[in-house]
Amino acid sequence: MSNQEKAYKELLEKWKEAVLVASCGGVLHWDQETNMPKGGARHRADQIAFLFGLAHKKATDAKIGELLKEVENSDLTADEFSDSGANIREIKHEYEKSVKVPQELVEEISRTTTIAQGVWVEARKENNFSKFQPHLEKIIKLKRQEADHLGYEKEAYDALLDNYEPGMSTEAIKIIFEGFRQELVDLVHAIADAPKKPDVSILERLYPVDRQKLFSQEAAIAIGYDFTRGRLDIAAHPFTTGLGPGDTRITTRYNPHHFNHAFFGTLHEGGHGIYDQGLPAEHYGTPLAEAVSLGIHESQSRMWENHVGRGRPFWKHFFPRAQQTFPESLGDVKFDDFFFAINDVRPSFIRVEADEVTYNLHIMLRFEIELAFMRGELEVKDLPEVWNKKFTEYFGITPKNDAEGCMQDVHWSSGLVGYFPTYSLGNLYAAQFYARAEEEIKYLDDQFAAGNFSELKKWLNEKIHKHGKRYRAGKLVEVVTGNKLDHKYAMTYLKTKFGELYNL
Amino acid sequence: MSNQEKAYKELLEKWKEAVLVASCGGVLHWDQETNMPKGGARHRADQIAFLFGLAHKKATDAKIGELLKEVENSDLTADEFSDSGANIREIKHEYEKSVKVPQELVEEISRTTTIAQGVWVEARKENNFSKFQPHLEKIIKLKRQEADHLGYEKEAYDALLDNYEPGMSTEAIKIIFEGFRQELVDLVHAIADAPKKPDVSILERLYPVDRQKLFSQEAAIAIGYDFTRGRLDIAAHPFTTGLGPGDTRITTRYNPHHFNHAFFGTLHEGGHGIYDQGLPAEHYGTPLAEAVSLGIHESQSRMWENHVGRGRPFWKHFFPRAQQTFPESLGDVKFDDFFFAINDVRPSFIRVEADEVTYNLHIMLRFEIELAFMRGELEVKDLPEVWNKKFTEYFGITPKNDAEGCMQDVHWSSGLVGYFPTYSLGNLYAAQFYARAEEEIKYLDDQFAAGNFSELKKWLNEKIHKHGKRYRAGKLVEVVTGNKLDHKYAMTYLKTKFGELYNL
Repeated sequence: MSNQEKAYKELLEKWKEAVLVASCGGVLHWDQETNMPKGGARHRADQIAFLFGLAHKKATDAKIGELLKEVENSDLTADEFSDSGANIREIKHEYEKSVKVPQELVEEISRTTTIAQGVWVEARKENNFSKFQPHLEKIIKLKRQEADHLGYEKEAYDALLDNYEPGMSTEAIKIIFEGFRQELVDLVHAIADAPKKPDVSILERLYPVDRQKLFSQEAAIAIGYDFTRGRLDIAAHPFTTGLGPGDTRITTRYNPHHFNHAFFGTLHEGGHGIYDQGLPAEHYGTPLAEAVSLGIHESQSRMWENHVGRGRPFWKHFFPRAQQTFPESLGDVKFDDFFFAINDVRPSFIRVEADEVTYNLHIMLRFEIELAFMRGELEVKDLPEVWNKKFTEYFGITPKNDAEGCMQDVHWSSGLVGYFPTYSLGNLYAAQFYARAEEEIKYLDDQFAAGNFSELKKWLNEKIHKHGKRYRAGKLVEVVTGNKLDHKYAMTYLKTKFGELYNL
Repeated sequence: MSNQEKAYKELLEKWKEAVLVASCGGVLHWDQETNMPKGGARHRADQIAFLFGLAHKKATDAKIGELLKEVENSDLTADEFSDSGANIREIKHEYEKSVKVPQELVEEISRTTTIAQGVWVEARKENNFSKFQPHLEKIIKLKRQEADHLGYEKEAYDALLDNYEPGMSTEAIKIIFEGFRQELVDLVHAIADAPKKPDVSILERLYPVDRQKLFSQEAAIAIGYDFTRGRLDIAAHPFTTGLGPGDTRITTRYNPHHFNHAFFGTLHEGGHGIYDQGLPAEHYGTPLAEAVSLGIHESQSRMWENHVGRGRPFWKHFFPRAQQTFPESLGDVKFDDFFFAINDVRPSFIRVEADEVTYNLHIMLRFEIELAFMRGELEVKDLPEVWNKKFTEYFGITPKNDAEGCMQDVHWSSGLVGYFPTYSLGNLYAAQFYARAEEEIKYLDDQFAAGNFSELKKWLNEKIHKHGKRYRAGKLVEVVTGNKLDHKYAMTYLKTKFGELYNL
């Protein structure tokens, strides 16, 4: 074994240790969100702070920097897409970022956002933006400092975006979003003007929680989420978490008076879970067993939730089962009425309740505002006014207050700036991947109608999941689809589907 | 602040860190036993090994030894029952024990028992003692070495016993058990000869699991287990675990065809849980917030399970509720028949299924055998013969094979030697504490019959729980009851209760 190979081996061992410690923190976090009794909150905060602090310490150990120097210009990195090339590239990227930001700034951001989240909860409840304003101002200031430490070529925003979507640039997003937005706004307005509307009240009938559980679980199993390596639990804010190879857990929440929340939520988290379960266990603890980016992760959840789960073939299989499961509420409902109802599109104020068409406009609005904050082109005090102006322009409706306007999301109070675009990138990746899958897999619709989802899952395993972080998102899209990221796939998908539904 | 006070403060901080890390391991262990999908087992073993390894490293840090030297002969230890006196005494005790055993021996015991447990499972299934024999021989040899490193004055067994019941001696146990045993054997034989027998088949009717859950939970709440600082879950091998102040969890298992398992199991674990919930949170991370010993812990579970939960006043309150909850199975059952059935006493082969009278004989048998092993008076190859001979003498029945004889327990294969006596010590402590509580609290039976268990709980909180490890077990018994540990309390309790039931 050469010296470089020895150093590489040691580098991976050190990295794996940090991942192991963080995975312990993951278990405690999952438990906190699903099981922990109220009384445990205070000690749990200490436990989690200790574990993630230790993981951070291990991941920023100076020894990692030394080992990286030994390996970074060796044969091991000759091919950046080889196992060693990709692992070294990604560890170096993570390591360098984490040592660039001074510990004091990390701690100040942590303190500030902890306080800001509490204030945000109250300010939103009271619909009092001025209460939240000074906290957001401080956060934006600190995030600019963070970007300065991280460094960037063109935009401070690039540095933050890189935390969630490594390698993606503000410029690239701007170009894609701008083309996408105009077409979307036109589609949203056309749908709003269409006389044909679904009767969504059928989804608000009684759907008993115990049967929703069985039905959601059945669907998660059908699409390929593996319960021998996972579980489905209840959480107030649903999420998916990979606690180690062989243990990826999903969560959902149940509303007895709405069919959609748990069912599509489970498909969504199930899609995230299938991605995590498809990462190569033999590389666990290294970047080769990690998800590419938040956007690619979101592409997997959106594909199963929307392209598959809100598609006609899926319901050819599942609608008779839904009628059997909920005879009181769906026994008298026609297939087309149900299918139209679950695909209702209408402008609304709250992002997390938005349909798959308008959702992207919610994201673009936030992206433009975040970018203006980071460029210093927008002051926090002007946020409500700018939000409402843009909102009216995109959606044709105006928020009645800031609680359902600029204060609806937890992200900014938590210091998550640069995160929002990954949701829409997820939609774009999903559409482009799915278009490719339809070309490569014959009779996908027929398979779904017969309740067979295994070929799509296998395709995703092979094309995307098994690579871990071998490719960055942009490269992965090219490798899988033969083309650069383009919003035309999403636009074609939306126009075709909703054109038919709304007779446009 | 004096130098000693500074050293004491630092000592506690270091100790608390070890406790914090171990508490993280506790969460992962709880999750493993209740929730973890099968696929997660391998990684979970790595996570838990890392966390408990780190906790051990922190608890055996040489710095702790130095700090102990600074404080151990200071004003802080002048009163061994003061906060600082007790904390220093117990930290010193733990620390010195853990540094005495060489790391290689610890690791060899760990490796040996990991293998032995797998072999034990198979050997028990195949009823093949000779398969297990060489592994048990090695374990006994290693445990003797461990005892030699730990050091002892009279008996090697003392050193092992101290791991579970600090300060207790083999001699003291021998004296108590010998007096207790003869009287117990007489009582067991008298009960066996009594013509009056309960009809236990009423407990084997259908008790639907969902209603068992509600009923067990109701009882746990009634006796004072606090669900805002705990939970009740399902585990194959029920246990209680304190994950931190404000988070103590209990588990049980349900058998739809037996009333006892879940119900009395929940009272038992609930008793453990009430103890943990009663430890002083303000001292968390120090011995003052830890349980005295396994025996004292067991006294709390046994008291709620047996003295309270298998008592007539308890069922005056709960029997009408049990009939309402399980009308198909208990609607036609008379109070006295039910009460007699849950107090059935009969010699049986399996310890964990034994009633409160014969249980102690199971323990004494194991204690005598362990002691003979450690003294070198018994060879492992002779275990089956000796077991069966003693068993016949104590119980009047002979095991048909080693699976229901000397291979029934997991303890020895896990390296737990010196642990068994704590179960019976628990019974003895419980009886002595309970006799005192009955003297000090007026109308305890009337309170129970009215569904009020709060005064007993408060008494236990004040007399036992709030002290943590301030007193060793023997001292605590004297402080609480005014007398040394004596088996007469248990014997009086058993003779009175079962004399009435069986018309002796």
